[in-house]
Amino acid sequence: MRAALVTADFAPRPGYKITQDEIRTHKVREGAKVWRNPKLVLRTDYPVPEPKPDEILIRVKAVGICGSDIHFLETDSEGYILYPGLTRFPVVIGHEFSGVVEKVGTNVKTFKPGDMVTSEEMFWCGECDACRSVDFNHCLRLNDPADLEFGELGFTHDGAMADYVVVKAKYAWKIDSLLDRYGSEDKAFEAGSLVEPTSVAYHAMFTRAGGFKPGAYVAVWGAGPIGLAAIALAKAAGAGKVIAFEVSPTRRELAKKVGADYVFNPVELSKNGVEPWEKIMEVTGGQGADFHVEAAGAPRHTIPQMQKSLAINGKIVQIGRAAEDVPIYLEVFQVRRGQIFGSQGHSGFGNFGNVIRLMAAGKIDMTQIITARFSLDEVYKAFERAHQRIDGKITLKP
Amino acid sequence: MRAALVTADFAPRPGYKITQDEIRTHKVREGAKVWRNPKLVLRTDYPVPEPKPDEILIRVKAVGICGSDIHFLETDSEGYILYPGLTRFPVVIGHEFSGVVEKVGTNVKTFKPGDMVTSEEMFWCGECDACRSVDFNHCLRLNDPADLEFGELGFTHDGAMADYVVVKAKYAWKIDSLLDRYGSEDKAFEAGSLVEPTSVAYHAMFTRAGGFKPGAYVAVWGAGPIGLAAIALAKAAGAGKVIAFEVSPTRRELAKKVGADYVFNPVELSKNGVEPWEKIMEVTGGQGADFHVEAAGAPRHTIPQMQKSLAINGKIVQIGRAAEDVPIYLEVFQVRRGQIFGSQGHSGFGNFGNVIRLMAAGKIDMTQIITARFSLDEVYKAFERAHQRIDGKITLKP
Amino acid sequence: MRAALVTADFAPRPGYKITQDEIRTHKVREGAKVWRNPKLVLRTDYPVPEPKPDEILIRVKAVGICGSDIHFLETDSEGYILYPGLTRFPVVIGHEFSGVVEKVGTNVKTFKPGDMVTSEEMFWCGECDACRSVDFNHCLRLNDPADLEFGELGFTHDGAMADYVVVKAKYAWKIDSLLDRYGSEDKAFEAGSLVEPTSVAYHAMFTRAGGFKPGAYVAVWGAGPIGLAAIALAKAAGAGKVIAFEVSPTRRELAKKVGADYVFNPVELSKNGVEPWEKIMEVTGGQGADFHVEAAGAPRHTIPQMQKSLAINGKIVQIGRAAEDVPIYLEVFQVRRGQIFGSQGHSGFGNFGNVIRLMAAGKIDMTQIITARFSLDEVYKAFERAHQRIDGKITLKP
Amino acid sequence: MRAALVTADFAPRPGYKITQDEIRTHKVREGAKVWRNPKLVLRTDYPVPEPKPDEILIRVKAVGICGSDIHFLETDSEGYILYPGLTRFPVVIGHEFSGVVEKVGTNVKTFKPGDMVTSEEMFWCGECDACRSVDFNHCLRLNDPADLEFGELGFTHDGAMADYVVVKAKYAWKIDSLLDRYGSEDKAFEAGSLVEPTSVAYHAMFTRAGGFKPGAYVAVWGAGPIGLAAIALAKAAGAGKVIAFEVSPTRRELAKKVGADYVFNPVELSKNGVEPWEKIMEVTGGQGADFHVEAAGAPRHTIPQMQKSLAINGKIVQIGRAAEDVPIYLEVFQVRRGQIFGSQGHSGFGNFGNVIRLMAAGKIDMTQIITARFSLDEVYKAFERAHQRIDGKITLKP
Repeated sequence: MRAALVTADFAPRPGYKITQDEIRTHKVREGAKVWRNPKLVLRTDYPVPEPKPDEILIRVKAVGICGSDIHFLETDSEGYILYPGLTRFPVVIGHEFSGVVEKVGTNVKTFKPGDMVTSEEMFWCGECDACRSVDFNHCLRLNDPADLEFGELGFTHDGAMADYVVVKAKYAWKIDSLLDRYGSEDKAFEAGSLVEPTSVAYHAMFTRAGGFKPGAYVAVWGAGPIGLAAIALAKAAGAGKVIAFEVSPTRRELAKKVGADYVFNPVELSKNGVEPWEKIMEVTGGQGADFHVEAAGAPRHTIPQMQKSLAINGKIVQIGRAAEDVPIYLEVFQVRRGQIFGSQGHSGFGNFGNVIRLMAAGKIDMTQIITARFSLDEVYKAFERAHQRIDGKITLKP
Repeated sequence: MRAALVTADFAPRPGYKITQDEIRTHKVREGAKVWRNPKLVLRTDYPVPEPKPDEILIRVKAVGICGSDIHFLETDSEGYILYPGLTRFPVVIGHEFSGVVEKVGTNVKTFKPGDMVTSEEMFWCGECDACRSVDFNHCLRLNDPADLEFGELGFTHDGAMADYVVVKAKYAWKIDSLLDRYGSEDKAFEAGSLVEPTSVAYHAMFTRAGGFKPGAYVAVWGAGPIGLAAIALAKAAGAGKVIAFEVSPTRRELAKKVGADYVFNPVELSKNGVEPWEKIMEVTGGQGADFHVEAAGAPRHTIPQMQKSLAINGKIVQIGRAAEDVPIYLEVFQVRRGQIFGSQGHSGFGNFGNVIRLMAAGKIDMTQIITARFSLDEVYKAFERAHQRIDGKITLKP
Repeated sequence: MRAALVTADFAPRPGYKITQDEIRTHKVREGAKVWRNPKLVLRTDYPVPEPKPDEILIRVKAVGICGSDIHFLETDSEGYILYPGLTRFPVVIGHEFSGVVEKVGTNVKTFKPGDMVTSEEMFWCGECDACRSVDFNHCLRLNDPADLEFGELGFTHDGAMADYVVVKAKYAWKIDSLLDRYGSEDKAFEAGSLVEPTSVAYHAMFTRAGGFKPGAYVAVWGAGPIGLAAIALAKAAGAGKVIAFEVSPTRRELAKKVGADYVFNPVELSKNGVEPWEKIMEVTGGQGADFHVEAAGAPRHTIPQMQKSLAINGKIVQIGRAAEDVPIYLEVFQVRRGQIFGSQGHSGFGNFGNVIRLMAAGKIDMTQIITARFSLDEVYKAFERAHQRIDGKITLKP
Repeated sequence: MRAALVTADFAPRPGYKITQDEIRTHKVREGAKVWRNPKLVLRTDYPVPEPKPDEILIRVKAVGICGSDIHFLETDSEGYILYPGLTRFPVVIGHEFSGVVEKVGTNVKTFKPGDMVTSEEMFWCGECDACRSVDFNHCLRLNDPADLEFGELGFTHDGAMADYVVVKAKYAWKIDSLLDRYGSEDKAFEAGSLVEPTSVAYHAMFTRAGGFKPGAYVAVWGAGPIGLAAIALAKAAGAGKVIAFEVSPTRRELAKKVGADYVFNPVELSKNGVEPWEKIMEVTGGQGADFHVEAAGAPRHTIPQMQKSLAINGKIVQIGRAAEDVPIYLEVFQVRRGQIFGSQGHSGFGNFGNVIRLMAAGKIDMTQIITARFSLDEVYKAFERAHQRIDGKITLKP
């Protein structure tokens, strides 16, 4: 079958303390410290995987390119990949996908061939101390270099930028309800391929940070796919106003489309001597935002703005990743009764199910953010475009 | 000025234990046990009230007729009023209103003449043990027959079915933002007069019961004004599906209008041998409703249905009032991880502010439920119609 | 090895709708409708189980007799067992236990021979829709008569009233820290055998119902092992006062021992014309109890008492099981801002870990409730005594 | 009567933007920017205040010296006071007190002469947008320089380092129950004078941050009076282990006394090349602390330590005040599912009531932290000692 793989040289940076397990398994925790000279390769002779007893085989119908996929292939001046986290190359990439069940393992009873599905990306074990305490997104085995059963789809385990992919049944979710909503199979699979990134925003906002009360003012910092999902979700959940900040013009337009009431370009504001927080105070009548979503991965820039525009009782939820210290003035969080939540992952707590329901109900339509579509055969072209960062979401189809 | 009063005879039922305070002040806790032969009287010579230092005088622009107003005037076979709760007659009725600030007391700094406003109906003291523990809706002085400073607007204190009304500034909320939304003053005041009943539903659902996660399936039992508000709010807050049950055809239609995805007539279902819970299981694909709102005031009938259609983790919130034991099978709440919340009132926690924001954002449009409008001069005619129970909401204007 | 089994005739009551799955597997959902003529049998030739790859074999050191064990053996007038729930006979009973790891399956990495352990009793799958939404205690496969992999230890799967028992590693918890606390191995294993019932109370109070604020007044209804655990936990968690109700004199004494500030005998109160709720109002200075724990399994009697002694914001958590409608006056829950939580199980959310920590810290000492000890050889004698219901907890040792 | 006042020169620092309201009322928001050359003066001819209708007059029986009192009198190199916040001099200082009601205002019904009481320190209005949304601790009028009715006891309004003090009845709480606990009036008043600082810790930990589950590991950074209260409360609320860090030997000893299981001196650790977080990881078996309390006012030093010893799901609550940016590595809060809460104040939510209950129940005994006692006549001597910072708490009595 066809499969788009990322390969790279296993070349731990001098001075980086690599563990014996990592050397043995090549499942490494800090990719940017280890992988060099990455390459994207479309193979056509990759073997179709066989589902184990608790797995299902899925024929892929749509798969999105995620920022992490791009960072697998972009390098620093020394040739090391930009993506900082858990990785095991070579691997078939792709983890935002949907498809049709082709075959089910012998123990699987909840799916049958023909079911339309999507899947979680985090392969949690369900057995470690974190998992059995219901913290699936912090699964110890997922992150353990010695453990090759668990990890991340498209990072450590072959993903969905291929004709077929296997996942354990426990990670898969039915999306047949999307067909009712969209009428077209094609659109339904597109929507289905966006359940995963939308669930990352959903988990952060509603499960992790406890959501906001309907009527609340919500600010979303960064309108990449996660930020756009946050905007759509905030709107769907009854935000009184949704205020977005984004530098890219395409994404600002998409932000409007998925539900932002106000969209500002921080660079342009700055040229006029205006700071983002001032706009928030202006449009909220001086009350500030009740809920701030950091989806820019630039907390050094965004958090200080949030601090100055935090409503009493305001919450901040950090979704974007950034390996940097952020200067935070905690006094503000005392005076304003503020709180900060870190979030990671999308599993557990019915996140996927609820996102699918919202899509099926037409409360959010994430297919609007897809601005480019390619066939899997055009994967190189698709990534060329991805590196230009002019799109909302780029989606590959068979 | 004009003012519509309810008068009645103070005639404690034989055997009812009335307190000395109640005899002295006529502020009675259980109206149906005391007030007989009620009458509605439109006076034209009622004195315009003068605002005390912490009060504001409001020129009324719209005031709705509430179910409790109707129950003040309907009687049982012995001539006692049907309304069971706190009352002090004679009183100018009307507590769902909006208007324009005419004059402010000497200590009031947060309002000025010309401001568009609505008001809370519960006159909480802010000082008793309940209030200073932030339980305003359970204010001890509000309910104390010995205390004439606090009580309920239009129940124990002169209300808004009049040309003017006074309330303490701390109960009033600005609604100027509704003018931006509706363009027309008339519509803005109509919406403003519906903030109070909508806040009762809001408080119950989001403050008291902690709301639901976006995507959740919500069932609303009863589509009177509170139920209709619950439907609109559920929709605005991201319910995956909103399922309503209501016997009146007018209200079923309104239920659809404000956002219900499914509306059923329990009587008709019953004729076909179908029970309400079965419809819920059907439209939720067997998962049940995650959030049940009891707004029918008939828990003996509705709770058993909820029990049979409760999703795992499902919540029930009781808003309707009913002086009756309800047979509850707690085992179901164990097996399904269920919970029940009782709710009363609308004060505190930013409820009013959030409802106004939702209206201003166009997330809910409660003016749709107004199906009849009268001038204050036509108050008798308005109540004649109210007793027929064919309307969503009847609203009086100057 | 030695093993105490319950056997019974599979004899579905006439009129009871048994499923094909139940007939095939004998894993039945409603035991009392199916099992007749139960017998306790101590076998000495029972095969030592072999741990599968994800299991561990445990040498049992202490195992308690639970109320459900007793109800397996007590029958109604027609000879059917009293225990109403999930069962599959014959089965080695016993699910409140501790022991030493003897051998681990090939995939087990978190335990090694010699570890001191206890185990969860609910065999949740970790994969069904309930489990992957973190509701382990409502696992669909656990309850599915067609599924023989999951169920309940000592109910559908061989339990711990034997020399050895196997459980999946994911259900087991280390208790070595108890040895540090108690000094003696014997005492540590006794405490370990009480982690399971204590976790049932812990889960209900702190995970399910969200606990209470330190200083709160807590009432515990029923002082069987679960009620006694609730008392000890309430005390440990900072209850301002713990008030217990119990008819058995032994248990009243134990209630005092584990931390109740007040213990009342409802029967005796009644003789003096006093109702339990009146005592609560008396000792709480009229404020009522903030947190009521139903551990008597008699909600028809206890809930009406709780209603009359519910503090503003008061919570009720139902742990005891009772297949009966309870008349509940929901109006009280509105006026008092009350809430009711149903609870089942003990898994997930770190319940076991936290209970072990509390024991290790000496915050609770549940070994105090053991009032009789027998060797496994004396199991018949132990059950004879159990049927007399004069003990706190009866514990068997090798 | 006798009264200890702080006087100072109103001398806004050059460049500091003082408002017209502040110039007019001398109620200034940033004391350290305005007040110079402070002096403590014990007057003996200060007029006994007369209670207004909603106030009570209290004869003071015990009053503690708080860190802020000390900072009123300590100055920087330019003679400005160290205390940074809301102040209005001259003022009778003292806000941690207890006493006996001497006289009540004409509208007061909940207190009578002879009642033993303490009082909140924050004079919240109960009417502004923050207060009516139940955020008393963020009252807008309390902080408004134009508003002289509201502010802080002993900061902007005459406090309790005097023979008598008045407060509105709504801020006062009865402490008669402490007499039952302690037997001695003297001890009961001592405990009563510690309700306020204990409530600051209580509010932060249990109301603001939602507490921890019994069994959790709690780390308290700083063992001044607030930190000591946090330690005692953590112990009382069922912490599995309480780990404290403090540089002062006296306070380390007190930390042990009130309940810390482990007390470390960070300076000494550092000498041995050990960092505080390493000790936490050691004593928690590598799991980290579930709940960190910042009571040192040194977040630049403590937060980085907390980050390295944060359990999965761990919470940090900031109580200490520090006008400084803190470098925070938010990535850790994502990977560990962490959260940060800012806290201020002690009012609302039954905090005072619950602290009094805990004291009455003997769950905490804060009188243990009093290490020096003086008569009011010795106030100069008491402050001399206070400046040496060798005590837990210094308490003045009549």
